[in-house]
Amino acid sequence: MSQLEPTPRTTLKRGKDRGSYELADIHGILDDGLACQLAFIHNGSPHIIPTAYGRVGSTVYVHGAAANRALRALCNGETACLSVTHIDGLVLARSAFHHSMNYRSVVLYGPMREVTEHCEWQAGLRAIIEHMMPGRWDDVRSPNEQESKRTMVLALEIDEGSAKVRTGPPVDDEEDYALGCWAGVIPTTTHFATPIDDPRLAAGIEVPHYVTHYPRAKRQNGAAR
Amino acid sequence: MSQLEPTPRTTLKRGKDRGSYELADIHGILDDGLACQLAFIHNGSPHIIPTAYGRVGSTVYVHGAAANRALRALCNGETACLSVTHIDGLVLARSAFHHSMNYRSVVLYGPMREVTEHCEWQAGLRAIIEHMMPGRWDDVRSPNEQESKRTMVLALEIDEGSAKVRTGPPVDDEEDYALGCWAGVIPTTTHFATPIDDPRLAAGIEVPHYVTHYPRAKRQNGAAR
Repeated sequence: MSQLEPTPRTTLKRGKDRGSYELADIHGILDDGLACQLAFIHNGSPHIIPTAYGRVGSTVYVHGAAANRALRALCNGETACLSVTHIDGLVLARSAFHHSMNYRSVVLYGPMREVTEHCEWQAGLRAIIEHMMPGRWDDVRSPNEQESKRTMVLALEIDEGSAKVRTGPPVDDEEDYALGCWAGVIPTTTHFATPIDDPRLAAGIEVPHYVTHYPRAKRQNGAAR
Repeated sequence: MSQLEPTPRTTLKRGKDRGSYELADIHGILDDGLACQLAFIHNGSPHIIPTAYGRVGSTVYVHGAAANRALRALCNGETACLSVTHIDGLVLARSAFHHSMNYRSVVLYGPMREVTEHCEWQAGLRAIIEHMMPGRWDDVRSPNEQESKRTMVLALEIDEGSAKVRTGPPVDDEEDYALGCWAGVIPTTTHFATPIDDPRLAAGIEVPHYVTHYPRAKRQNGAAR
């Protein structure tokens, strides 16, 4: 399977040319993000939780406090909606109407599954840590029994969803190109600054190679979009 | 009124010390964002739309295609949940469990109102454009009648919601400070690159002062968080 099947709620109605069901696009946008937005219905109301996540193949993992009743309720077959959005640029057109942003976004739908099997629980948590910082997991203390009990890992299969991407300059009405105002794009990227040592860091501990060579920083700080 | 009243769905259960109902905090986080995430229930399922927004006093405005049935349905008294999240840093602790992110987030709840009165419609749209780029509105062609008909502006009053903020270094278990691994924070900011002229820009049109002196870029590129 190289692409997802459109469903009634993922069939793009507007901006079809910006949409994609290709798994390569969906995975790429997910892998580039830092935090996702997890929306769900609780007590009849929509809710959003911004949270860290990680991907293993066609599964997205998030975690939360085991005491979080809303998250727990979400695992009873309710549909969740998980979204990742990158803003890549401000698109300044010659008319107010055609102002836009360049972006890449993914929206996924599906029931969340509470991960109870220990190996998958650890793989899910590892994916979340490694998504934030590849190479980190093997360097830090693994969860102990008490921490495991306090942490719920949830899985969402990448079965239903779509990506949407806008790139390029503004698209103005033909007659507006004659207007005298400036138009163009202001590219935006996530910048990763110099790591700040923990104030309680013991003397002689250097910033590890995987931090100084953080692939996300290299890619994003170097790329002009 | 300087702060919002907590409600059952905005009363923070975990991380209370990171929460705030102060309007100054909520407005500040909203004003710093580029896009928000708008969640709502449509056909029994949660949905998220990433979208531009603007604030006028205690009202947040978003816009969308008038033909968007989900947005239109949202104005029939349904509750929406609007969220803005800034990721300010990756927090690398000595244990997997204490990894975190520094962030500022706002979640608002309430019914959305379709703005039908012309002056408010224009003020809402202006707020969205000016939020993206202060000074832009007066420089571009205003919406014509056809564009007005095609564009729906929605308002959400800042009546119910909360902010949540994490700052500072990792917080490790006392015994973990003896571990030999590096710990600290990698600050993340939104970087605004040099504006790219529209390929069809007429000769002699310079990048305007409000773009070269973009306050968000000055603030974020200069600040070490």
